[in-house]
Amino acid sequence: MSEAHDAVEVIIAKRGRSELTDAQIDWVVDAYTRGVVADEQMSALAMAILLNGMNRREISRWTAAMIASGERMDFSSLSRPTADKHSTGGVGDKITLPLAPLVAACGVAVPQLSGRGLGHTGGTLDKLESVPGWRADLTNQEMLDQLEDVGAVICAAGAGLAPADKKLYALRDVTGTVEAIPLIASSIMSKKIAEGTGTLVLDVKVGTGAFMKDEATARELAETMVALGTDAGVTTVALLTDMSTPLGRTAGNALEVRESVEVLAGGGPEDVVELTLALAREMLAGAGRSDVDPADKLADGSAMDAWRRMIAAQGGDPDATLPTARETHVVTADTDGVVTRMDAMAVGLAAWRLGAGRARKEDPVQAGAGVEVHARPGEQVTAGQPLLTLHTDEPDRFERALASLEGGVDVGDAASYTASPLVIDRVAP
Amino acid sequence: MSEAHDAVEVIIAKRGRSELTDAQIDWVVDAYTRGVVADEQMSALAMAILLNGMNRREISRWTAAMIASGERMDFSSLSRPTADKHSTGGVGDKITLPLAPLVAACGVAVPQLSGRGLGHTGGTLDKLESVPGWRADLTNQEMLDQLEDVGAVICAAGAGLAPADKKLYALRDVTGTVEAIPLIASSIMSKKIAEGTGTLVLDVKVGTGAFMKDEATARELAETMVALGTDAGVTTVALLTDMSTPLGRTAGNALEVRESVEVLAGGGPEDVVELTLALAREMLAGAGRSDVDPADKLADGSAMDAWRRMIAAQGGDPDATLPTARETHVVTADTDGVVTRMDAMAVGLAAWRLGAGRARKEDPVQAGAGVEVHARPGEQVTAGQPLLTLHTDEPDRFERALASLEGGVDVGDAASYTASPLVIDRVAP
Repeated sequence: MSEAHDAVEVIIAKRGRSELTDAQIDWVVDAYTRGVVADEQMSALAMAILLNGMNRREISRWTAAMIASGERMDFSSLSRPTADKHSTGGVGDKITLPLAPLVAACGVAVPQLSGRGLGHTGGTLDKLESVPGWRADLTNQEMLDQLEDVGAVICAAGAGLAPADKKLYALRDVTGTVEAIPLIASSIMSKKIAEGTGTLVLDVKVGTGAFMKDEATARELAETMVALGTDAGVTTVALLTDMSTPLGRTAGNALEVRESVEVLAGGGPEDVVELTLALAREMLAGAGRSDVDPADKLADGSAMDAWRRMIAAQGGDPDATLPTARETHVVTADTDGVVTRMDAMAVGLAAWRLGAGRARKEDPVQAGAGVEVHARPGEQVTAGQPLLTLHTDEPDRFERALASLEGGVDVGDAASYTASPLVIDRVAP
Repeated sequence: MSEAHDAVEVIIAKRGRSELTDAQIDWVVDAYTRGVVADEQMSALAMAILLNGMNRREISRWTAAMIASGERMDFSSLSRPTADKHSTGGVGDKITLPLAPLVAACGVAVPQLSGRGLGHTGGTLDKLESVPGWRADLTNQEMLDQLEDVGAVICAAGAGLAPADKKLYALRDVTGTVEAIPLIASSIMSKKIAEGTGTLVLDVKVGTGAFMKDEATARELAETMVALGTDAGVTTVALLTDMSTPLGRTAGNALEVRESVEVLAGGGPEDVVELTLALAREMLAGAGRSDVDPADKLADGSAMDAWRRMIAAQGGDPDATLPTARETHVVTADTDGVVTRMDAMAVGLAAWRLGAGRARKEDPVQAGAGVEVHARPGEQVTAGQPLLTLHTDEPDRFERALASLEGGVDVGDAASYTASPLVIDRVAP
């Protein structure tokens, strides 16, 4: 029997709602990585998985097969336990920036492999690259040395981790098969498990600015990923958090670095501080360091110290002035009242169109572009007072950014505003 | 917006059970033919169509788009009306061979574009190619001339008809997306409508030896194709016919030609005669010639005359001796009794393994290979009496052919046998 024939059998099995066997999963992921299963076969299988699902055993095995397609990192030589965080992505989500040095300051090493942004949500590497001199690419040895010396590293994932995922993700992107929970979960978790962290905390976003728009889907994804991590021996927990409005008061690369530094200095927006501390406590608990209160490490400056050492270790100058955009445009309130709604997707699209994000992988981003929020939901404004400031190097971008903000911000009666909780729920094994 | 982006939107629409718009269907079929929509995108869409379906409007439009991808034939200059037949394929299904000249003898022209066999069912062109000198490839003008002169032509479909179907069929074959009724129906009907016949009679097979194993699925396919033909202005009717046992007493290329000539000579197996006449009456009715009784044309020799002229017009010698296989092997009955079951798939696979069919498109077939049936279901046998004769040029093929017959034939009490009707139902618009 030819190998190509086997691919059709695997596709037909999933098409007919059968469970795939371990052998089928191992073979199809490996054969796809080797190019024996063709793109057109894998995309048909991905669509069948999207529509017919996979059970916990199948997803675990699929994830294991993706991990087996590449190398695994090993942090067992470190003197400290390791903990990592993954966010499913949101507008103004700069939490990784203060979180990694904060957790390092608490005595737990944070090996954070991050990505660049595509679409309306920003990428952690894009944000840090606005710090003059900072570089994202480290060798495995540099990463290990920095984890031992500084305790925190944020860098680009090497091509060696889960290459099957890289190939499959690119295929899903052009074949309408991105939104399959088994494939999303195994894509995220294969990289995190291969990375070798001991503890993993997942920030699963829910709301207009998130990948998952409704709580039920977000919860399903969270539960799937927690199960996958647990099955692989990683201490895993997830928080479901609100992404109906942007996090903090900035969306954009250098703007978010500035806000993160404010948090590390003991200030910053309340919601960013709250989520940073909540995630830090989960990471510390997973790593067996619940005895340390991360709030103390923000207050006493040790988190800021770790930040400065982390930036410097990767060639960045923590004292350098951050880039700013050449042009700004202020959006003001039409009436007196309370901001009752500020839509995360509207703000995310505006920041993206101002130049903070990219439409294609190869596009550059503007370090200074983005949106500054002057009045968050629940805050009072008077007519004519600034609501938002838009930043860009290219003023012809204002028009499209303003168009995406159209209908995205409501100002009304204080009575019509209800605060919603930032952390919606916690999903544990 | 790039064209590749549109493909993802079309896929996501069908993935989400939305109806595709006419514009989406026209675009995606055309762009796929041009290579702008990639194979991996079309296979994901095909899987979404297989699992989520298409409604009558969508299937009609999809079929029209496939027709528009190539040329259309035009028989309006002929002095006679045209009628064609399509069978979904079965074991021993040689009906086209007596049917085309019979209908021609009744005054209706039959433009029969046929294919070669793949798998366990034979191909009409493979069967006719066992007639010395006969050729399948005609130009459009040769086809038109022969239709005017002889009234019947059986030849290969040119590459110009529905090229989108040709490309899509090859893709479906390797991506587990063959068994989608909207795609099966539009594949068959795009070629038949582009061929330009005025009347079309569909022989939709049901049973173990058929593509459709159960009556409900066969009926759905029949109803879909009848609707498609009707929407395209072709008088279309379908018969659901039994394919749980082979048609007639032969399965194999020259063996089936011999049996077809027996039918044209006024003899032949009862079931082959019954189905040939039933299909002929439907074709004549569609073409407005219900006044002619095809049974008369078998009896008076005019159908045989048309056959001889049809074969000769395509270079064949109707008087030539047909090829026979070098080796035969007789399978005998173990006990006395009545044949209560003879499985069509078992006999079809045996004929295929004896060399009558091909595993890959480029394989040759043996003209003389196949299976001869000595006792059909309902017929009496005594222990040791021949049940089947296997024919092949290569005796090492007997073993695998016998293995596929294992458990395929039952001999038992006459009381345990119930005859099932050959024509199960008629599906009209």
